[in-house]
Amino acid sequence: MNRNLEILISDLRVIAQLRRVAAVLNWDQETYMPPKGAEARADQISLIMSMSHARFTGPEFRRSLAELVDLPSGKVLDGGLPPHQVRMLETTWWDWRRANALPVEFVGELVRLTSEAQNVWEQARHTSDFNLLAPYLEKIISMKREEADYLGYEDQPYDALLENYEPGMTTRELTALFESLRTPLVNLVERIRDTDTPDHREILAGDYDESDQWKFGMDVLYDMGYDLTRGRQDRSAHPFTTDFHPSDVRITTYLDRHDITQGIFSTIHEGGHALYQQALNDQYFGTPLCEPISLGIHESQSRLWENYVGHSRPFWTCYYPRLQERFTDQLGKVTLDEFYSAINMVTPSLIRVEADEVTYNLHIMLRFELEQAFINDHAAVNDLPALWNEGMEKYLGITPENDADGILQDIHWSMGGIGYFPTYILGNLYGRQFYEAANNQIDDLEDRIARGDLKTLREWLRENIHQVGRARTADELVQDVTGSPLSAEPFIDYLQAKYGELYTI
Amino acid sequence: MNRNLEILISDLRVIAQLRRVAAVLNWDQETYMPPKGAEARADQISLIMSMSHARFTGPEFRRSLAELVDLPSGKVLDGGLPPHQVRMLETTWWDWRRANALPVEFVGELVRLTSEAQNVWEQARHTSDFNLLAPYLEKIISMKREEADYLGYEDQPYDALLENYEPGMTTRELTALFESLRTPLVNLVERIRDTDTPDHREILAGDYDESDQWKFGMDVLYDMGYDLTRGRQDRSAHPFTTDFHPSDVRITTYLDRHDITQGIFSTIHEGGHALYQQALNDQYFGTPLCEPISLGIHESQSRLWENYVGHSRPFWTCYYPRLQERFTDQLGKVTLDEFYSAINMVTPSLIRVEADEVTYNLHIMLRFELEQAFINDHAAVNDLPALWNEGMEKYLGITPENDADGILQDIHWSMGGIGYFPTYILGNLYGRQFYEAANNQIDDLEDRIARGDLKTLREWLRENIHQVGRARTADELVQDVTGSPLSAEPFIDYLQAKYGELYTI
Repeated sequence: MNRNLEILISDLRVIAQLRRVAAVLNWDQETYMPPKGAEARADQISLIMSMSHARFTGPEFRRSLAELVDLPSGKVLDGGLPPHQVRMLETTWWDWRRANALPVEFVGELVRLTSEAQNVWEQARHTSDFNLLAPYLEKIISMKREEADYLGYEDQPYDALLENYEPGMTTRELTALFESLRTPLVNLVERIRDTDTPDHREILAGDYDESDQWKFGMDVLYDMGYDLTRGRQDRSAHPFTTDFHPSDVRITTYLDRHDITQGIFSTIHEGGHALYQQALNDQYFGTPLCEPISLGIHESQSRLWENYVGHSRPFWTCYYPRLQERFTDQLGKVTLDEFYSAINMVTPSLIRVEADEVTYNLHIMLRFELEQAFINDHAAVNDLPALWNEGMEKYLGITPENDADGILQDIHWSMGGIGYFPTYILGNLYGRQFYEAANNQIDDLEDRIARGDLKTLREWLRENIHQVGRARTADELVQDVTGSPLSAEPFIDYLQAKYGELYTI
Repeated sequence: MNRNLEILISDLRVIAQLRRVAAVLNWDQETYMPPKGAEARADQISLIMSMSHARFTGPEFRRSLAELVDLPSGKVLDGGLPPHQVRMLETTWWDWRRANALPVEFVGELVRLTSEAQNVWEQARHTSDFNLLAPYLEKIISMKREEADYLGYEDQPYDALLENYEPGMTTRELTALFESLRTPLVNLVERIRDTDTPDHREILAGDYDESDQWKFGMDVLYDMGYDLTRGRQDRSAHPFTTDFHPSDVRITTYLDRHDITQGIFSTIHEGGHALYQQALNDQYFGTPLCEPISLGIHESQSRLWENYVGHSRPFWTCYYPRLQERFTDQLGKVTLDEFYSAINMVTPSLIRVEADEVTYNLHIMLRFELEQAFINDHAAVNDLPALWNEGMEKYLGITPENDADGILQDIHWSMGGIGYFPTYILGNLYGRQFYEAANNQIDDLEDRIARGDLKTLREWLRENIHQVGRARTADELVQDVTGSPLSAEPFIDYLQAKYGELYTI
């Protein structure tokens, strides 16, 4: 490898290590930190993150990068480099340009603002008082518009924010995609509602011992191929996946004594994320080649496992008897069909994170619309609760009784996470396309799943998706793996087939 | 406060925060890290520690310090500063001078060498093969001699190393102290041995449920005043205390199903350390005023609680019934006197960490002699096992059958921790003097302990010792608190009285 590239990679590694150190601090904060340690911890995280940012945007890194890439254009200087190194440099430059676009004081101010706003959000949600949050949201929106201007965009400001999470994606492309999804989804939800099927989730009601829930989840993780010598599961208020290196990728889960589905599906969901991180090629650690492609691609892995495997009949053909064995009192008399149908109930509801796999997407579309409204079209913050409620009525036919169950339900905007929500739908779409490719390429995939052989799928994902890192863009990956560009069709077909059968419509 | 002082303190805070970040990484490594995360973790810790070192020894810090202190002499420039700020600057300068005395390459080489040596030590101990470790030990000793030369000393090289752990202490002073301790101890051990008392620890044999052991330990910690909103206990292979800020001070314990004393005393010991750290004045965080004075003073706090409280009759008068209640099957028929006598058995034994409070000191004296022999007198590494065995015979009348139970038992030297061992005896001596001062100053201290009132003692320690930080030296603190200089006499008197009664000699 040439000397300049070596220097650059070694710089990148230090920057990446600092970020991972902050991730350890954050993991501890969410799992084991005593409550009064919070203030000192915030200082530590902010110190480490600012050091990482300073290195990435500092003169030394600029010099290293300038030896290899034409800084104004991003063109790689050495035409003889192998393609993966060219891509590595292009992607590094892309990240670097965006990190440099934001003035340090701007970043600092946004961090302070959103950190305060998150506390205010908790209070606002608790008291269902949007007015508390409104002035903060107003400032955040205004700063995010400023951010979009700093970052630059061709078509509309929202594009720039979207790319924080989904490089290469545009508002226009997303709008078209969501358009194609909207009507079939709304129709499907209506047809399901018209069947007047009673809520049969109550057959799962019961008191489920948490340590037995834990063990069941660990068994599934093991079968999925989650390597516990290079990872671990803990509990936290909100489940998440974090990685310190491909050799240390951790997940958390949330268990509810009275709702067994919470723990199972959060474990499988985070397990899907974790398999991706564990399989990244650590030989390239620190560089984009050892990074996930985008949030949408990441979410495709969690959704694929949570929904296309974890909510499928083949999966429960194998695992339901095991679950029943652990919870004879609660599930002994519930048949596989009843269980399968209960975990796949479709019901319009107010809270996104509790939504089923059909209505979930409508929750996201609403947020996508609102984000465009306040970023691109300067919608007034005070109008947002009403816009929210109208959207809920339009998409789901229900209206929240208060803002706590409406516009105040998500922390994302208070964190400055604008442009984040659409990646959840993207995850569903990418995930479905990937799942079908796997199903085409693996002999008897669903029979295997029904036998508890989850590792064949995992291995396929590792080879085709996980280990690729940012050597490919999301577009390229979908094309490589599925032979087609991103499309909502496979997802729609899947939902129509699955729920057509379940609701006999 | 003057502007220069503000800048210096802000520099010190960043350096301190980096060290605490490394402490979080290390805590995780010892408690929850999956095994294969070790390599990436070592890289993270070394990155953060080298950043902290680079800042402390870098040109910016030098400039800040030079505004306040005459760098060659350490004299504080502004005569009008209040005494605690003067002391803060003097102590900062003292640390800075020592950190700067070591060339960066030297530090790096020593870190690499000792990190390798620790792995070799594990293997050497496992196979009881001193020859494996010898070449590493040889290099470590030679580098530590070099380190002493870099650091400088007035009398002998070992002084410089001692001050890594016990600022202000000299080999000469320690030698005199240990001289005064040696004969009374050896005599006491001999007189105890002559009583031919059978080993009555076996009455404690049994299978003790670990979660009940845990709960008992947590109850004691609570009574000691360990604040669990600013700390937590976990399990690890070797118990330790670590602090990330006075608001987040954590301990670990080690539980053994078949030996209940392990968990109890390691919990109380680490609890003693933790009370010190939690009570440091966080208004001065980052500066020496929010740091413990020395390892010896730190150990005085753990020993005071572990031995002078935790191994005392008043303590068990209160806690033994509670312990019996938890372990009726195992302890129901063991009387308080039998229990008290079993946990205070004195028996010469091979392993330091398993030694009782009398013979323990003799283990340390042996190490202190050997350290002087190889640092000051250039004793050959190959002669060390024989010197060890001779020393064991001289002090304890027993000889290890192999080096694993002899010279290979401790990790300290492989870590470069030469000069560390004496602080364990210092802890016993300081601790005894402090305990007696507390006993003089607190009405009915031991009656209080016998009622489970441990917080009065804790409060006294907080006020008189913990919150002082490095505003006082160890010498000054002992004088302030006890009215006398450091002396072995109170400790000897205590042992003679306690064991005279226990063994009726």
